Amino acid sequence: MAEINAIAKQFVDFYYSTFDSNRANLSSLYREQSMLTWEGTPIQSATAINEKLTELPFSKVQHKVETLDAQPSSPTIPSVMVDDSTNALQFSQTFHLIPDGGSYYVLNDIFRLNYGG
Amino acid sequence: MAEINAIAKQFVDFYYSTFDSNRANLSSLYREQSMLTWEGTPIQSATAINEKLTELPFSKVQHKVETLDAQPSSPTIPSVMVDDSTNALQFSQTFHLIPDGGSYYVLNDIFRLNYGG
Repeated sequence: MAEINAIAKQFVDFYYSTFDSNRANLSSLYREQSMLTWEGTPIQSATAINEKLTELPFSKVQHKVETLDAQPSSPTIPSVMVDDSTNALQFSQTFHLIPDGGSYYVLNDIFRLNYGG
Repeated sequence: MAEINAIAKQFVDFYYSTFDSNRANLSSLYREQSMLTWEGTPIQSATAINEKLTELPFSKVQHKVETLDAQPSSPTIPSVMVDDSTNALQFSQTFHLIPDGGSYYVLNDIFRLNYGG
């Protein structure tokens, strides 16, 4: 579990710092078989995901990760859920990472805003 | 995607109606290699997960699923994120389902309450 948690922490730090500084660079994390579900809309392939992320209607954003839960899906495959509970816009995001040449790519990515009750 | 969405809907309906009526019956959904992360605490094996779920400090609960996002992790393996945004206690939960003898079991289960900001 220690290794899975370290991989998840490293991935999440990289993902959100890249998202907040230059979203176009996130495309290296996705492959043709990758899928992003963004607020209920499924988007498949690295190209389409990159288009969606770079066309989001805001130019500046800052993510503050509140909780991070990682689990092994197999001994080497982490599944990661991130929760950001105390900011202006709350969200939950789940990543399923697949090993690829010493690194990982994102196979599954599900993002949802959590609206207050 | 239509089949994955149908499997996810069927699973989620079964999971939460069972959770809300008789939590002990959820144990059939988990295996020895299954992991539940409950509010940050990792719990592994069907037996340990069943103990945790049945010992939760409430006897009556009702889940109302607000959004449900499903993706194929492989052609036959759904990854499901559930979000419950408008109730007294908001939560997000992610399931990773594995085919098993014509049905599915839960390999990964991550649960988090979303506290209001």
